[in-house]
Amino acid sequence: MIDLRSDTVTLPSEEMRAAAKDAEVGDDVYGDDPTVNELEVRAAELVGKEAALFVPSGTMGNQIAARVHTDPGHEALVDTEAHVYKWEVGGFAELSNLQIRAFDAGERAAPTPEQVREHAREESLHVAGTGLLCLENTHNARGGVAIPKADIDAAAETAHDLDIPVHLDGARLFNACVALDEDPAAMVEQVDTVMFCLSKGLGAPVGSILAGSEAFVEQAVRVRKQFGGGMRQAGIIAAPGLVALDNVERLADDHENARILADGLDDIPGLSAPTPDTNIVVVDSEGAGLTAEEFVGLCDDVSVLGGTFGEFHTRFTTNLNVSRVEVKEAVERVAKAVQSK
Amino acid sequence: MIDLRSDTVTLPSEEMRAAAKDAEVGDDVYGDDPTVNELEVRAAELVGKEAALFVPSGTMGNQIAARVHTDPGHEALVDTEAHVYKWEVGGFAELSNLQIRAFDAGERAAPTPEQVREHAREESLHVAGTGLLCLENTHNARGGVAIPKADIDAAAETAHDLDIPVHLDGARLFNACVALDEDPAAMVEQVDTVMFCLSKGLGAPVGSILAGSEAFVEQAVRVRKQFGGGMRQAGIIAAPGLVALDNVERLADDHENARILADGLDDIPGLSAPTPDTNIVVVDSEGAGLTAEEFVGLCDDVSVLGGTFGEFHTRFTTNLNVSRVEVKEAVERVAKAVQSK
Amino acid sequence: MIDLRSDTVTLPSEEMRAAAKDAEVGDDVYGDDPTVNELEVRAAELVGKEAALFVPSGTMGNQIAARVHTDPGHEALVDTEAHVYKWEVGGFAELSNLQIRAFDAGERAAPTPEQVREHAREESLHVAGTGLLCLENTHNARGGVAIPKADIDAAAETAHDLDIPVHLDGARLFNACVALDEDPAAMVEQVDTVMFCLSKGLGAPVGSILAGSEAFVEQAVRVRKQFGGGMRQAGIIAAPGLVALDNVERLADDHENARILADGLDDIPGLSAPTPDTNIVVVDSEGAGLTAEEFVGLCDDVSVLGGTFGEFHTRFTTNLNVSRVEVKEAVERVAKAVQSK
Amino acid sequence: MIDLRSDTVTLPSEEMRAAAKDAEVGDDVYGDDPTVNELEVRAAELVGKEAALFVPSGTMGNQIAARVHTDPGHEALVDTEAHVYKWEVGGFAELSNLQIRAFDAGERAAPTPEQVREHAREESLHVAGTGLLCLENTHNARGGVAIPKADIDAAAETAHDLDIPVHLDGARLFNACVALDEDPAAMVEQVDTVMFCLSKGLGAPVGSILAGSEAFVEQAVRVRKQFGGGMRQAGIIAAPGLVALDNVERLADDHENARILADGLDDIPGLSAPTPDTNIVVVDSEGAGLTAEEFVGLCDDVSVLGGTFGEFHTRFTTNLNVSRVEVKEAVERVAKAVQSK
Repeated sequence: MIDLRSDTVTLPSEEMRAAAKDAEVGDDVYGDDPTVNELEVRAAELVGKEAALFVPSGTMGNQIAARVHTDPGHEALVDTEAHVYKWEVGGFAELSNLQIRAFDAGERAAPTPEQVREHAREESLHVAGTGLLCLENTHNARGGVAIPKADIDAAAETAHDLDIPVHLDGARLFNACVALDEDPAAMVEQVDTVMFCLSKGLGAPVGSILAGSEAFVEQAVRVRKQFGGGMRQAGIIAAPGLVALDNVERLADDHENARILADGLDDIPGLSAPTPDTNIVVVDSEGAGLTAEEFVGLCDDVSVLGGTFGEFHTRFTTNLNVSRVEVKEAVERVAKAVQSK
Repeated sequence: MIDLRSDTVTLPSEEMRAAAKDAEVGDDVYGDDPTVNELEVRAAELVGKEAALFVPSGTMGNQIAARVHTDPGHEALVDTEAHVYKWEVGGFAELSNLQIRAFDAGERAAPTPEQVREHAREESLHVAGTGLLCLENTHNARGGVAIPKADIDAAAETAHDLDIPVHLDGARLFNACVALDEDPAAMVEQVDTVMFCLSKGLGAPVGSILAGSEAFVEQAVRVRKQFGGGMRQAGIIAAPGLVALDNVERLADDHENARILADGLDDIPGLSAPTPDTNIVVVDSEGAGLTAEEFVGLCDDVSVLGGTFGEFHTRFTTNLNVSRVEVKEAVERVAKAVQSK
Repeated sequence: MIDLRSDTVTLPSEEMRAAAKDAEVGDDVYGDDPTVNELEVRAAELVGKEAALFVPSGTMGNQIAARVHTDPGHEALVDTEAHVYKWEVGGFAELSNLQIRAFDAGERAAPTPEQVREHAREESLHVAGTGLLCLENTHNARGGVAIPKADIDAAAETAHDLDIPVHLDGARLFNACVALDEDPAAMVEQVDTVMFCLSKGLGAPVGSILAGSEAFVEQAVRVRKQFGGGMRQAGIIAAPGLVALDNVERLADDHENARILADGLDDIPGLSAPTPDTNIVVVDSEGAGLTAEEFVGLCDDVSVLGGTFGEFHTRFTTNLNVSRVEVKEAVERVAKAVQSK
Repeated sequence: MIDLRSDTVTLPSEEMRAAAKDAEVGDDVYGDDPTVNELEVRAAELVGKEAALFVPSGTMGNQIAARVHTDPGHEALVDTEAHVYKWEVGGFAELSNLQIRAFDAGERAAPTPEQVREHAREESLHVAGTGLLCLENTHNARGGVAIPKADIDAAAETAHDLDIPVHLDGARLFNACVALDEDPAAMVEQVDTVMFCLSKGLGAPVGSILAGSEAFVEQAVRVRKQFGGGMRQAGIIAAPGLVALDNVERLADDHENARILADGLDDIPGLSAPTPDTNIVVVDSEGAGLTAEEFVGLCDDVSVLGGTFGEFHTRFTTNLNVSRVEVKEAVERVAKAVQSK
């Protein structure tokens, strides 16, 4: 079985498991878990923010950010393909009473300053004013696009000119940084807050980080408690999270594997797969007369797992559980399956 | 002063004022106001629904509909230019925890069946499923477009195929019906609920109607109470509302006036104004080197009132307070003002 | 038929009807209705606040106040018998995400400073901090109790010491002022905001006033729009509201009638009715072996209308539609009905 | 340091740590984590429900239950001392728009059938109908009271007669079962859903269980995702949770320790500590002229940690990290500290 459904399926390494076993722990709701505290300090430093908070999922990190940044009667500006809009169960509206204003950021996946200005709305008697700009890097639904720092900066600075705070959904922030050879702290320098996942490509079993100013994190702790994200001896999962922070450099392997995978699939008659920025490969199977559902089924039959990503598009995500050899093997299996259909 | 800012500025007629004075009233929260009851029965009949509810504003009618039709964790499908999305202070998110999914319905102002299918989303672990399709006819922000029954029907039937209820924001429903020579009940036959305004072109001072099935209205009464829309001797305003229902045919005058206004303005060098479907005229002043703000100011100086409607677009709305003569006078004044600037 | 169900059933006088007919009106959403503007100025002066807002109901006034005063994650302190808690369809939780903390204010109907201190909660990681103290005067569910200024002041000052804003639900504020011979502005001097009804004992057909600081009202206008309370030519109902402000002194008649009614009913064997402070008479029929439902039915049979107010308690509310003669007649009818049951 | 602040501070055992290290894991958002799946099956069986869900905290379990059971415009019936009301940051109002109706369940900590009937409210035009009865066993804020099955049953059956679903906050459910020698499944037989913690007395580092019908859990999974409680390789913490389920019997030790602690403290002049039902000891220090804050400070000076629990009340919670010897030592230290103050 070659599981390329998502990098969320990554299994913790032996080192992570050992770290879990040996973690020094305490009650993190009281602030007494030294491992969580260490992780939060290290994570904050890594992204150059004053403070950080350990949360059980990336979704919770994003949702807490939305709550803290905004007031009732606000709008959030997001790309039409943003994760917070498509795949977080309507949380912005539900948990923060926030109206979403989505616009098409296009293939580059980041809004231009012009787009930010165009879609930002000033509060009035009739209008829900813009209370948040939410960016995403890498951009999942647009194929793992790595957005350059300059684009993040330009969007964020424009928002700030309009007094709009900026949150970055950096579920795969380090994929972007590695792909673009950018320092994480520099990458998020201009955004107010950033969430990044310790799971996914970094391989930790559970958990994400939400980072920002001290004042922001102070409020975020309280919202986390309300959402039910306050955990007790959370050091058990923070410890593998600390190990995961050493996995940043190895994301380059996933990216190389993704390029090999894309090139291989693109060579299969009927399939088309552009060279990816990072670890997400999107394959168009329309040329082979296959819907995504059919194509995923066909791959499944040869024990290669992917996920539908539109009517004719399928997503494969390379990750630390899948080796170079397996990636090449996956290409061969899919080639045969497509040819013999 | 020729006030073309909106048809919301219409003043009640003497007949309406007399009706207010002489209305038989009771406590409508107890269901005891005979005039309100009469209005609700007549309004329901007019649009061919089982029941109707008198509400203090169109916004409240739309917001109640959203609340009754949907559950938390749902999405509402709307046009990017919908009133409920642009000008109701984020109410769907605030009052119903509803995520908005907006798409560009284009100049025809109604989604095609393909668009409804494309943007409808099935509820899943990650996805806020579509809980409402909200249409708008005439479509205000798209220039008072009158959407034909066939297009309303097609969108509504597609939504129903997907088990999605449909609400029509018919703030100016009768403008559409008059423009298209369509029976109101036929026009809204396929939508589950409809809101229409007694104010605006019909001239009542206050109030709108929300109509639908008996079961729907039973729930709507309760939501109205919660929103603070339960009024006491509301017959005082329902009585002019009854008179307003006799004003449907006269909307044709507003439409003819709008055509005259648009043609006149379009003839002014530098201005461009397409022939309107109904009573909303949108003028592009870019050719005259004028932003909307500048153009509105210039009109204001000659006592013709309009409202900005984009960077270079201005909206004029004909209404029962403005006669044919005044419309022609307005054109002359604006022509002079533009020429002498 | 002698209708003592509520003072909400009061019918507008001829003078009010004439005022409606002759009102100078405009579009109040644009701030252009001179009658509404006049009413808001006069109402603000009457209660000694900087500004006032005309709203379609008392419920909306209270709900707007809660929204403007509080933030998500706050609590509101209210009496267990408060209208906002019992009879506003859970609006605080629904419209403002506000947790209610109710405590028993007892027969005096106002919390003591000790109670305010005891139930106020400081925000913490686990605790929703107190964001509002809501008082009610007169207190409906406690039998129209008129709370003296000293008690309102003491509660409000205590709240302010704790940085908690105070809203007064003054649906029947003038009943309290007349009963206690207190100036309205003095009565609400220490509360931040006050809502009072123009309907009920003052007799206007529709509408209430929400008054407070200019900054408060500026925000309240926007919330009113979102709730759907922005009305167009609202002068039609504001005009009778202006007339209603002249009805303050006549509330003394309702109070005298209520005392006569209570004394009369109390003299009927089996019934017990304490002398009321204002216009609300609460009768205990347990001594007559009658539940409230049975007693109300019995009264109904003799065309005297009241409302159940607990298992054995029934409420009668005197009002401007019911004369002294009718009140005495009501007593006689009820006496016969009880005796002959 | 003898830490009796809470049983939430319990540290995972070596067996739990080893289980974490060796856990077979998968992506639980995809339902692929065999350890989580095993835990959920075993947990459901233990409490006799069809299905169960692993959540990161007890708070999240309770909040999910409220969301799934209720609709907007509902009320939740709770004791005035309920955890969901006092210490969950107003989550019912915030996350489920639920109005809280709290009543004093008294020392027995469970509402009588009469109380349920008295406070349950039928939905009406004005009234937010009761949508949930939430019980708590053991009852934390009332001193770890173990409520007998008969009382839980009586309250739940009454609620069911009124068509009100019942959720049990069983953060310390097994303390109640052990104290009363009751089978867990029998204890919760009559409630629709139950949350219990694997942390606290059972000693797991992180996590709680929410159990109910299959239909309920299906909805609960989705709400968990929205709240951000969907975790990836959650088997790392579910594995210690499985070990924790073997810790049920040992809660008897905590209870015996609590009795020893209470008796010892009660013997100290000026202190009063009733014999506890379970592991929570509440000490009244007023007789010693000490506020809770002073008393906690005094204990702190001799390295015995407790928490304030009212103006003169302090809570000590025995737990698996504190031995019999330490409990006795704690009594001696506190005795000396009080005497020498």
